[in-house]
Amino acid sequence: MNAAGLDVLLHAPRSPERWLQALAAAAPLHRFHLQLPEHPERIRAWVGWAAPLEHFVPMTGLALVLPLGAGVDALVDRPDLRSEVQIVRLVDAGMAEQMVEYALYAALQYQRGFARYREQQARGEWQPLRRRSRGSVQIGVLGLGALGAAVAGELARFGYRVAGWSRSAKSLPGVQCLSGAAGLNDMLRVSEVLIDLLPSTADTRGLLDRQHLALLPAGGQLVLASRGDRYDSRALLECLQSGQLGGAQIDVFAHEPLPANDPLWRCRGVAITPHVAAMTVLEDSVAQIAANLDRFVNGQPLLGLVDRQRGY
Amino acid sequence: MNAAGLDVLLHAPRSPERWLQALAAAAPLHRFHLQLPEHPERIRAWVGWAAPLEHFVPMTGLALVLPLGAGVDALVDRPDLRSEVQIVRLVDAGMAEQMVEYALYAALQYQRGFARYREQQARGEWQPLRRRSRGSVQIGVLGLGALGAAVAGELARFGYRVAGWSRSAKSLPGVQCLSGAAGLNDMLRVSEVLIDLLPSTADTRGLLDRQHLALLPAGGQLVLASRGDRYDSRALLECLQSGQLGGAQIDVFAHEPLPANDPLWRCRGVAITPHVAAMTVLEDSVAQIAANLDRFVNGQPLLGLVDRQRGY
Ligand SMILES: NC(=O)c1ccc[n+]([C@@H]2O[C@H](COP(=O)([O-])OP(=O)(O)OC[C@H]3O[C@@H](n4cnc5c(N)ncnc54)[C@H](OP(=O)(O)O)[C@@H]3O)[C@@H](O)[C@H]2O)c1
Ligand SMILES: NC(=O)c1ccc[n+]([C@@H]2O[C@H](COP(=O)([O-])OP(=O)(O)OC[C@H]3O[C@@H](n4cnc5c(N)ncnc54)[C@H](OP(=O)(O)O)[C@@H]3O)[C@@H](O)[C@H]2O)c1
Repeated sequence: MNAAGLDVLLHAPRSPERWLQALAAAAPLHRFHLQLPEHPERIRAWVGWAAPLEHFVPMTGLALVLPLGAGVDALVDRPDLRSEVQIVRLVDAGMAEQMVEYALYAALQYQRGFARYREQQARGEWQPLRRRSRGSVQIGVLGLGALGAAVAGELARFGYRVAGWSRSAKSLPGVQCLSGAAGLNDMLRVSEVLIDLLPSTADTRGLLDRQHLALLPAGGQLVLASRGDRYDSRALLECLQSGQLGGAQIDVFAHEPLPANDPLWRCRGVAITPHVAAMTVLEDSVAQIAANLDRFVNGQPLLGLVDRQRGY
Repeated sequence: MNAAGLDVLLHAPRSPERWLQALAAAAPLHRFHLQLPEHPERIRAWVGWAAPLEHFVPMTGLALVLPLGAGVDALVDRPDLRSEVQIVRLVDAGMAEQMVEYALYAALQYQRGFARYREQQARGEWQPLRRRSRGSVQIGVLGLGALGAAVAGELARFGYRVAGWSRSAKSLPGVQCLSGAAGLNDMLRVSEVLIDLLPSTADTRGLLDRQHLALLPAGGQLVLASRGDRYDSRALLECLQSGQLGGAQIDVFAHEPLPANDPLWRCRGVAITPHVAAMTVLEDSVAQIAANLDRFVNGQPLLGLVDRQRGY
């Protein structure tokens, strides 16, 4: 049995021992290394995040890369990952429920005016706002994958009016599913709260540019939780400063941590969170990775296999 | 038929015509008056809020009072309401879903640290906080009536650990139901988020005093959405200032609007909303009132009849 196991490099800079212990317990067939072994060509699989430049060069036998996250934009194009190397991303793995919370908080805040009440409080102002029911609030979700579909579905179940946009046509209970450029424009025009959960790919990078932002209804809210290169931050700032956008809850930035001098820190209506919308959950991630390592060894189809051409 | 209809005084200072029109349409049997008629003794029922002092004195034939809200603390003891006058409160009538939103926002904010992220943002600090799952957050709900039961039930369904406290013993799916003084203390000791939805009565006024607040876990959160006399605001301020309490979302105050010089306006961790947690919904309220007027005329049991001795 042991002969069939893989040599796996584990690159988890934050708490390598915790990951090692959990993986060893969940995937006892395989041999996990925290450092490159004497014969780096024996490494067949890699688990981790934040691989430094040229990190993969010595691993000439590498076949499988399993990042500890849902996004693979930092991996698909890497010149040190040969095109035959398969990339397998985490599918949900405990992240969808967190993203639902993140989005629901923003939706409730918009619907019930909590941010405006905070502004009023700062001025010592006691002023009830007009009541809005959930069913009167239109929400748009960009991306209907593992995270987007969960967010759209839960917000719809909770009573919001929800549309979603994806590459292929979809059908989700209670969600108006759109695709294509016309579908995108239709959705943007009505979305009072727009939640971005598209992966960052050659096709989607910078999609939230001046033109697309201008389509949103006046006073609308953005929830930016996919990647920092999905939006034009200058255009975003201008829309916020002009009041064309009412606010934004932003978790992801072109440069992270967000530089100290970035005007987003102090822009009115902007709430900043430090890339925590959906954190990697150790138990769920380990279970999914262990299953994929075993599937690979047994020649079974991998869960969450990335199409490197497509970029996600 | 018309002879059986009631003369009803409608005292809706904010938008009398809207209420009049809706009530007239929903309860065509009855005659609604915006002013006391020439023979005030013919008034048999009263619909409204904010009745001034001695307002009811001339209505010597009054039998039924239907306030446009869920709370009846301003009515049960009034000397100008004879003890035979029946008071019928609104039961949910569109308010429960709003209270669920109000409580859920506070719960999400606590669980996901959004208030702390706002403080960090003000300092330009990028610092992820430890992940908390819903199931790890213990919530307590004071009162399991029309609003409290809805809040407790929805928060439990959403995945929080929820306990609730009421006068009589209850059973609600997913909610640990407690009663009695021991049950109250047990609940307070573990409630990281405590949501107050008890009516204000002789028994409950001032219940959230220094002793009871001191039982809450350090850093806990209060959601005060029932009545402003349910808590000791001095003790609350001290708990917040000392850090014993982490924060409070407060909708109701001993004096409303909250006076400009009240230190709560600027106390760290306090979010103030101007008595809007659950607003009266015209359509639902009118339907409930119309049904009760007809029930009264037909000698049927009234929905939401208040026990004036008990105070709710
Ligand atoms: N902030 C955080 O903490 C955090 C945490 C985890 C993940 N994320 C981000 O969230 C992203 C989404 O994760 P996921 O697991 O939901 O991804 P996923 O399952 O791969 O879903 C991607 C969705 O985007 C759609 N899509 C991709 N390219 C498109 C295009 N050109 N036009 C229209 N739709 C397109 C896909 O459409 P089809 O369904 O038609 O393929 C799919 O619905 C990740 O890529 C990552 O960047 C952020
Ligand atoms: N901020 C706002 O916008 C807003 C809006 C609407 C209402 N409110 C407030 O919310 C309050 C609750 O409304 P509701 O419709 O849910 O009232 P409700 O249906 O009458 O429920 C009252 C609950 O409190 C419990 N209770 C009463 N006295 C108690 C005591 N001495 N010890 C323990 N439990 C006690 C009752 O126990 P039993 O079930 O055993 O009787 C019941 O569960 C209202 O009275 C009003 O003040 C605020």
